Amino acid sequence: MSPNIQTMQNPSIVLYAPKSAKLEDKPIPFLNPHDVLIRIAYIGVCGSDVHFWHHAGIGKSINSSTGLTMGHEASGVIHSTGSAVKSLAPGDRVALEPGVPCRVCRACKSGTYNLCRAMRFAAAPGPPDTQGTLCKFYALAEDFCYVLPDAVGLDEAVLVEPLAVAVHAVKLGDVRPGETVVVMGCGTIGLMCAAVARRFGADRVVIVDVVEGKLEFAKGWLGEGIETWKADVGVDAEGNARRLLKAFGLEESGMDTFGGKVDTVIEASGATSSIETGIHVLRPGGKYVQTGLGKPKVEFPIVAMGQKELMVRGCFRYGPGDYELAVGYLRQGLIDVKPLISSVTKFEDATEAWEKTARGEGIKILIQGVQD
Amino acid sequence: MSPNIQTMQNPSIVLYAPKSAKLEDKPIPFLNPHDVLIRIAYIGVCGSDVHFWHHAGIGKSINSSTGLTMGHEASGVIHSTGSAVKSLAPGDRVALEPGVPCRVCRACKSGTYNLCRAMRFAAAPGPPDTQGTLCKFYALAEDFCYVLPDAVGLDEAVLVEPLAVAVHAVKLGDVRPGETVVVMGCGTIGLMCAAVARRFGADRVVIVDVVEGKLEFAKGWLGEGIETWKADVGVDAEGNARRLLKAFGLEESGMDTFGGKVDTVIEASGATSSIETGIHVLRPGGKYVQTGLGKPKVEFPIVAMGQKELMVRGCFRYGPGDYELAVGYLRQGLIDVKPLISSVTKFEDATEAWEKTARGEGIKILIQGVQD
Amino acid sequence: MSPNIQTMQNPSIVLYAPKSAKLEDKPIPFLNPHDVLIRIAYIGVCGSDVHFWHHAGIGKSINSSTGLTMGHEASGVIHSTGSAVKSLAPGDRVALEPGVPCRVCRACKSGTYNLCRAMRFAAAPGPPDTQGTLCKFYALAEDFCYVLPDAVGLDEAVLVEPLAVAVHAVKLGDVRPGETVVVMGCGTIGLMCAAVARRFGADRVVIVDVVEGKLEFAKGWLGEGIETWKADVGVDAEGNARRLLKAFGLEESGMDTFGGKVDTVIEASGATSSIETGIHVLRPGGKYVQTGLGKPKVEFPIVAMGQKELMVRGCFRYGPGDYELAVGYLRQGLIDVKPLISSVTKFEDATEAWEKTARGEGIKILIQGVQD
Amino acid sequence: MSPNIQTMQNPSIVLYAPKSAKLEDKPIPFLNPHDVLIRIAYIGVCGSDVHFWHHAGIGKSINSSTGLTMGHEASGVIHSTGSAVKSLAPGDRVALEPGVPCRVCRACKSGTYNLCRAMRFAAAPGPPDTQGTLCKFYALAEDFCYVLPDAVGLDEAVLVEPLAVAVHAVKLGDVRPGETVVVMGCGTIGLMCAAVARRFGADRVVIVDVVEGKLEFAKGWLGEGIETWKADVGVDAEGNARRLLKAFGLEESGMDTFGGKVDTVIEASGATSSIETGIHVLRPGGKYVQTGLGKPKVEFPIVAMGQKELMVRGCFRYGPGDYELAVGYLRQGLIDVKPLISSVTKFEDATEAWEKTARGEGIKILIQGVQD
Repeated sequence: MSPNIQTMQNPSIVLYAPKSAKLEDKPIPFLNPHDVLIRIAYIGVCGSDVHFWHHAGIGKSINSSTGLTMGHEASGVIHSTGSAVKSLAPGDRVALEPGVPCRVCRACKSGTYNLCRAMRFAAAPGPPDTQGTLCKFYALAEDFCYVLPDAVGLDEAVLVEPLAVAVHAVKLGDVRPGETVVVMGCGTIGLMCAAVARRFGADRVVIVDVVEGKLEFAKGWLGEGIETWKADVGVDAEGNARRLLKAFGLEESGMDTFGGKVDTVIEASGATSSIETGIHVLRPGGKYVQTGLGKPKVEFPIVAMGQKELMVRGCFRYGPGDYELAVGYLRQGLIDVKPLISSVTKFEDATEAWEKTARGEGIKILIQGVQD
Repeated sequence: MSPNIQTMQNPSIVLYAPKSAKLEDKPIPFLNPHDVLIRIAYIGVCGSDVHFWHHAGIGKSINSSTGLTMGHEASGVIHSTGSAVKSLAPGDRVALEPGVPCRVCRACKSGTYNLCRAMRFAAAPGPPDTQGTLCKFYALAEDFCYVLPDAVGLDEAVLVEPLAVAVHAVKLGDVRPGETVVVMGCGTIGLMCAAVARRFGADRVVIVDVVEGKLEFAKGWLGEGIETWKADVGVDAEGNARRLLKAFGLEESGMDTFGGKVDTVIEASGATSSIETGIHVLRPGGKYVQTGLGKPKVEFPIVAMGQKELMVRGCFRYGPGDYELAVGYLRQGLIDVKPLISSVTKFEDATEAWEKTARGEGIKILIQGVQD
Repeated sequence: MSPNIQTMQNPSIVLYAPKSAKLEDKPIPFLNPHDVLIRIAYIGVCGSDVHFWHHAGIGKSINSSTGLTMGHEASGVIHSTGSAVKSLAPGDRVALEPGVPCRVCRACKSGTYNLCRAMRFAAAPGPPDTQGTLCKFYALAEDFCYVLPDAVGLDEAVLVEPLAVAVHAVKLGDVRPGETVVVMGCGTIGLMCAAVARRFGADRVVIVDVVEGKLEFAKGWLGEGIETWKADVGVDAEGNARRLLKAFGLEESGMDTFGGKVDTVIEASGATSSIETGIHVLRPGGKYVQTGLGKPKVEFPIVAMGQKELMVRGCFRYGPGDYELAVGYLRQGLIDVKPLISSVTKFEDATEAWEKTARGEGIKILIQGVQD
Repeated sequence: MSPNIQTMQNPSIVLYAPKSAKLEDKPIPFLNPHDVLIRIAYIGVCGSDVHFWHHAGIGKSINSSTGLTMGHEASGVIHSTGSAVKSLAPGDRVALEPGVPCRVCRACKSGTYNLCRAMRFAAAPGPPDTQGTLCKFYALAEDFCYVLPDAVGLDEAVLVEPLAVAVHAVKLGDVRPGETVVVMGCGTIGLMCAAVARRFGADRVVIVDVVEGKLEFAKGWLGEGIETWKADVGVDAEGNARRLLKAFGLEESGMDTFGGKVDTVIEASGATSSIETGIHVLRPGGKYVQTGLGKPKVEFPIVAMGQKELMVRGCFRYGPGDYELAVGYLRQGLIDVKPLISSVTKFEDATEAWEKTARGEGIKILIQGVQD
């Protein structure tokens, strides 16, 4: 990449085609009255970035002539403020919620702005394209910036985004005090869902994966009150469901339809067999949230869903209150995200961060913002 | 079948093996203090009866040595009452809710007795087996009998059962005044779901099928305020979704994920393509209820469910208040089920009623109770 | 009042002090990009206007030097549109939702914009004051204008505002199909709540007043399926509750705490005795909505509320979807508001409309917009 | 009292008139098939016992010729089991939920058995009277007994009853993670509500009283994460509300209606001024639960409730899942009830325990079961 980063006004990492990104100078964004300009401190890498990197799109494709500035997980420091901004001042350290809804449509007015069809989310192929956070200066509506408590580092603050995803999922799963919750998958989102479910009062939380090393990390990070379990790839979905229920004494007798004593499942792997195992461990009336995305269509045990009258929820990003709650967990020290940060890459080496994530190296890899 | 029905104390139709049923005499059931003995007037035939007739089981198999008395949709007249019964008296005409839960477990205490794992539902293979309603005398807990208004015939009363299924489905779909609802499938349950959704205040109701004749019947029976639409078997699920949305002006622009302006889908066919079409027509945040049962597993568009954050509900039988509401619709004349009764078969010819239903002759076929 | 209305650019009725209003010329409001300018057709008079007229304030007082343009119920025709407006065009006939929230705060983002602390509602004393609708030209955000179906007159459209109040109240009361609902008070809001509760599927609706003439009007307007009942001013609240329950066969035996078979009460009178009667007729677990406002504090039967575990709701204006549903009722002809319009007053005679309403003449009095 | 307790088969403390109780021998209760016979270990004293002691009734009066065995908070050991009991065996240590509903009515079937009109609750004046737990042997349905973990003492187990009251209240207040909760009153229920609200994920919990000593106890017992505040009896309700909001930085600007940043108030004192202060500190859309009972009617700020669109809930005993959750908190060591036990009185001296409680000596006074 180009070395002249110090002379650029807004250096940005722009993707044009699969595995083809450039460091480019972009204009400093225009501020509407209620916007702030943020000097980006850290940017996180997530699975969707890797998908973009490999396919130059997700759903829609990137326009190969204009390219797209990448990045959506980020933290930063307020550099300047629009004319009407009252809640923030230059120097404030913030976590960024990287999507601004229209505020006008029925979804926005009804408390589900994450479902706004006119959402401008960071690094989304258009038309119109939206700017990502992998740049020096990013403009955002003030009410989508969340001031960080002093004790929370700007590196940790990047993880507020996936933590807000987990908060949203646990809310949709309507996890209640006293429940038994099973989380499928030990990736960043799965780990965070387990931690949040416990904070919502779940009595028992079991987190599942097929990789021993991931389970060991989970055991260490999640600590007391959360149990881990290894699914067996040589066993079918129903077999794994039976094994899991037996392992934790969650079996239930007298059921015509197969199921156990699990109240809520949060599926965070996207794997077909994991989805099916998740459905099978639930009790009648249980709840299931799909956060992991894999193949567009999967073989789904729909009769089991019917006979146990399950509630199955799709889950998309984060909505009202989710960022507040995530920041609150960091402020109170209830969830320590620091150990999830595996490494920090220089801004100019952003593509290496994507490659590392693609190779499964570590949990969460950060990219450092542009240094002076 | 045997002709000595007049001399039997409790003539019953007992299934032993696929396509093998006998008319037999059974003892008159014992009454617990809160039970009533009902002289059965009419018994309805539904798809699960046909499945039983063809496979001698559904999920579990019938014990081929003891057999199983068939039937679960029924109406009748109170013949006698247990010692503690206060709400009913001999001569009362009633619709039967044919399953009695344990009243003790967490599901029962939490307002979801339909999910009771110890439910004793009519005509279910055990152990222990439960008696069906295709007999002369049937015992039932008094609080699962619903007194009929004078204007409601005992034949119509049989249809309270599928109407309660529809009420339950529409409740689970949380259909609200002003909504646009699509019902997939013009069978008895689909028809009733459309009628009930309208009574719940849905502004627009569209009912879908692939058979022209069924749609014509639907149009006539459902009347004003409900629209019909023919899906094209030569088109894939997404194509049918696009066609449906276009036909009714329910298209939505600006969506990354495909969807329209439909608030709730009630799937009452169980067909894979219909399930997928149902998911695709929904708006972000839309609701989907699965009432129809087909194959245990189907190819399911799980990413679409996720990105639109849909609520997908299984739906099992009926729960608190569903029978009351169904009887209320008949009492008020808000839903006229009489035209759904296609024919009435004599008790001794029950197997013919199953064969007719299997051949798709008519909507709802009744079997007359034992005549003196 | 001044006769030169034809030469004014934006004639407006401005209140300065109790019973002191002037017809004045005001500037034509500035349009933000998403605003429209509306030529007002009709303005409605409600109880709060009368309170303003008598007290020059409600809660806060009007600034007596600047005065306040009155009016908040209104209909009109789009005169011009802001630069970004897409959903409306000049000539469109609309009902006005007369309050625009901040769209940014937690209440707005959570689906409760009616609770926005920065709401700019028509004709509210500030600072800053907000303009009322009792003028020739009114500016409003496009998404708070609701296009009228051809069949709905601009006079009827004024009643969308109180109808939206009723929709909001019935939603907060969570009125469900099959319920028994009691509405206390036969004013505009009470009448509309009764009509809406019926459209939400209530099986029985009883509307209560102490004035015979109001009950007769209610009987005529509400029609089939709604019952009326006269409370006796000589009887205490509990006595009236007993009488009401007896009159409709809604008594319940075996209750330690007094109550009947009423599921939901919507209180639309604000009278202390009516509030108490409403609490007493409810069943355990019943729901109560307070729409009528009277004295700031009342003697309230709090132990009855506790022992029956009632849900008691405050109710403030209207929120997401309420106007849409109200307009839908007019479009479908499900609620005919025309008979509620008692008389129409000329713009210049607005104060007479307030006086008439103060004297209780008629149900809803309209003021005609400025004529050319 | 009589000294021959060793020779009695079921010694019981029977109240006949205000301040007049006798130790009497009663028959050992008959067991239905699903009942168990419990040897009572400890009985708790609560405010309603004191009310009974002083007035020989609460609502209804005790029949002065037959008297009424007192007591409803209790723990014990299973002595024998009915013929159909499967979940319990002699020797099991249990907490008692002292009311058995009819299991048949609409309230029971709908998940609100605490609202059952035919509830048989311990020590309730009839007809028919129900037996209290202040005896040697008590019969109860097996599903209303909750097995104690080994680590939980039979003395602590008595406090499961008030803890279940608190769980029920916090559930009705729909306390969610991240909320700010204010609890009015530092009695047993108030203390427990504060502890439970914190376990439900409340970010801030403030508990209020007018007595310094009670606040000191609260501070010590509740520990980290819960704040205490002293209301000033010389200040009116609104003044105290302002003081409280200011003290904790919960003030909110820009509100026409007075209120702060409090999400949920749980009122556990029953005092009129406390009720009003509770309403005033709430944010628009806030929630209020009334657990404390004082005068049947109070001066209630109903317009504030309306303009802030509050949800105000009555709260009555406990329902499905409440005891399970309360026992779970003891099992997990999340709530330590031991410090709330102020003293233990001998069975024969039960009336002294009532007197002590009446004099406000200590938090919770226990009565020991009959000793061999």
